[in-house]
Amino acid sequence: MKPLGPIPAGFAARDGVLTIDGAKVTELIAQSGGATPLFVYSGAMLRARVADLRAAMPDRLAIHYAMKANPFAPLLRLMSGLVDGFDIASGGELGMALEAGLDPERISFAGPGKRDMELQAAIMRGVTLNLESEGEAERALKIAERIGKTPRLAIRVNPDFGLAGSGMKMGGGAKPFGVDAERVPELARRIVGAGADWRGFHIFAGSQSLYTDAIIETQAQTIKLAARLAEEAGVGLPHCNLGGGMGIPYFPGDTSVDAPRVGEALAREFEQMPDVLAETQFCIELGRYLVGEAGVYLTRIVDRKISHGEVYLVTDGGLHHQLAASGNFGTVVRRNYPVAIATKFGAESGEEASIVGCLCTPLDRLADKAGFPHADVGDLVAVFCAGAYGASASPSAFLGQGPAREMLI
Amino acid sequence: MKPLGPIPAGFAARDGVLTIDGAKVTELIAQSGGATPLFVYSGAMLRARVADLRAAMPDRLAIHYAMKANPFAPLLRLMSGLVDGFDIASGGELGMALEAGLDPERISFAGPGKRDMELQAAIMRGVTLNLESEGEAERALKIAERIGKTPRLAIRVNPDFGLAGSGMKMGGGAKPFGVDAERVPELARRIVGAGADWRGFHIFAGSQSLYTDAIIETQAQTIKLAARLAEEAGVGLPHCNLGGGMGIPYFPGDTSVDAPRVGEALAREFEQMPDVLAETQFCIELGRYLVGEAGVYLTRIVDRKISHGEVYLVTDGGLHHQLAASGNFGTVVRRNYPVAIATKFGAESGEEASIVGCLCTPLDRLADKAGFPHADVGDLVAVFCAGAYGASASPSAFLGQGPAREMLI
Repeated sequence: MKPLGPIPAGFAARDGVLTIDGAKVTELIAQSGGATPLFVYSGAMLRARVADLRAAMPDRLAIHYAMKANPFAPLLRLMSGLVDGFDIASGGELGMALEAGLDPERISFAGPGKRDMELQAAIMRGVTLNLESEGEAERALKIAERIGKTPRLAIRVNPDFGLAGSGMKMGGGAKPFGVDAERVPELARRIVGAGADWRGFHIFAGSQSLYTDAIIETQAQTIKLAARLAEEAGVGLPHCNLGGGMGIPYFPGDTSVDAPRVGEALAREFEQMPDVLAETQFCIELGRYLVGEAGVYLTRIVDRKISHGEVYLVTDGGLHHQLAASGNFGTVVRRNYPVAIATKFGAESGEEASIVGCLCTPLDRLADKAGFPHADVGDLVAVFCAGAYGASASPSAFLGQGPAREMLI
Repeated sequence: MKPLGPIPAGFAARDGVLTIDGAKVTELIAQSGGATPLFVYSGAMLRARVADLRAAMPDRLAIHYAMKANPFAPLLRLMSGLVDGFDIASGGELGMALEAGLDPERISFAGPGKRDMELQAAIMRGVTLNLESEGEAERALKIAERIGKTPRLAIRVNPDFGLAGSGMKMGGGAKPFGVDAERVPELARRIVGAGADWRGFHIFAGSQSLYTDAIIETQAQTIKLAARLAEEAGVGLPHCNLGGGMGIPYFPGDTSVDAPRVGEALAREFEQMPDVLAETQFCIELGRYLVGEAGVYLTRIVDRKISHGEVYLVTDGGLHHQLAASGNFGTVVRRNYPVAIATKFGAESGEEASIVGCLCTPLDRLADKAGFPHADVGDLVAVFCAGAYGASASPSAFLGQGPAREMLI
């Protein structure tokens, strides 16, 4: 039998049915029109996560939400009242952010392949561009001149270090992201000299790390690098985005990041800040950490079958909504996410079963040979940690299925 | 330097620009409105592929198209005039097939998680259901009775063997697909006894194999299994779907399946057919093999950058349209697809470069450290073998990007 990932804290059962913010998932599905699959995002958990993080972090640190993790409009509206800024990664996300009522001055835009029209839309609205290359800087300056706007420009720095233990390394050696550190001072002077609104640095060393010490060490390195580059550039540093890095537990044995310890270390860093950063505003930019554990994907069992003695629970959902949970996105070895029978939540495991999706491909597996209470056609399956990189990061059109419903409660 | 996959035959250059069916890709993009990324599917190549396959196969073998590979409506309409039947995998695909004008009697529906409403829609229209379990059979019979239709029912058999060298094993041991062979005769009698329109077997051992001998051996085993099960069931076998299995070369060193040799072997099988299969109609069901090599994904370079001496060509496309080419779908070790600079097609390799997408994730890489002619901002990149499992099998909403355009010429 293979283990399942750890179910995040805060979920309970009533009459054997999983509840989210006190509501049974069966009721939530009924409220949403009765159809499955359904993503449910807990507003209470989102609020609590941001509040806990704020309590853990020094006041000087602003908290940004990287909306790539989950761009569901009601969730964006909720987050806009909770966080200090948003990071977007495309012109499409800019449109969604503006529709959700976000102030463009609170938005920064990072991403290696910004098209001219995306640069223009961002400059028009006063969004900060985290420039990924000298070429992009020149394009942005030219567009700004043409449209007669002062662009708000920051440099995304490719640091010489990566974040240890991170699922996605974004720094350390050759990368498509940002400008190599040694070329940053010259570019900063070029931007300031061109009359742009100089916004500072974006330094993102990696994401989805569960190693508290590595995160602390990387943040210290990031601040040191920012100080050195600002010093060399001689242009001051109004803002510094320290990137993200804090991950969430998905797999058996994973444990949470110790946010209070990260906050204490950061407070110590802030206390001994070099002069060049004395006035700098700092932020961290988190996606998955803020929203991942607040989401649950609910799918219904449509068949229960036995093949060569093995039990398969076939659901009406699958990798078209949960690509990462199926093990097909950014993972080399497939491991089980936290998955449970939502209509027998908390019941003891009675059998070994695999939970598969409805797609006609062996890739479509939500849980592999794990222990579950006996479940049958009509029972609901819950995949946890579905709040980030779920609905929007999965091939929803695959096999003609279409997107799942989403609901913020 | 890492090698690239083999570019399929049939592509040429004019004035250094890649042509598809004689048209420069720059002209095709202009025709489509000027925007990139764009998928182009070659009608001439689709027609040639089906014609070649027909010439190679015995007349008795019908050819079905598995539309999951590419459900683009104009392509479906073209294919409907070329092939003998279609395989669908969802109610959504049924809708697309009917909209494309396909005759429902030529459609069969396989897939492990069919919902009641999908079964009902299929039965209503006379689509053949490839039943995946005894439970699904009972649900289908009940629905048919309720709506007063005679359902057309076949059994998907989980064979005791898999297809050697296949990218996706669909048989051999415990599987979520089909009914274990030893339980098939009883289920066949149950279906016939219930008064359904008995359609026979669907036996799909695996897909995407490039081993001609393995495909020949698997087809022989499949026919032997069909004969044995039909004999045991004592119900006759009007149809037998031999599944697919024939793959296309994607990666360095891959070579094409020898279709004429597969056809000759199948002809010999058909000559020595046991009595129980004397009247059986046979088909193969192919997706990728029919359409994969006829598609090209075109994306424009928006940045050229150097990081620690390595060249990155950043495009306006990426894994949101080409998940498999990025190495994130069904592959363990990332290898390069066939990729070229379309505006310098056929030019000699002058440098090592990585071609990345516009998404802000290190997963978004279309070619890793391969040799290309020097390319700059504005040049076009072509990813070949993009006709199957491209547009519809990728997370197009990821990072707010949206789907690519598609065009059949």
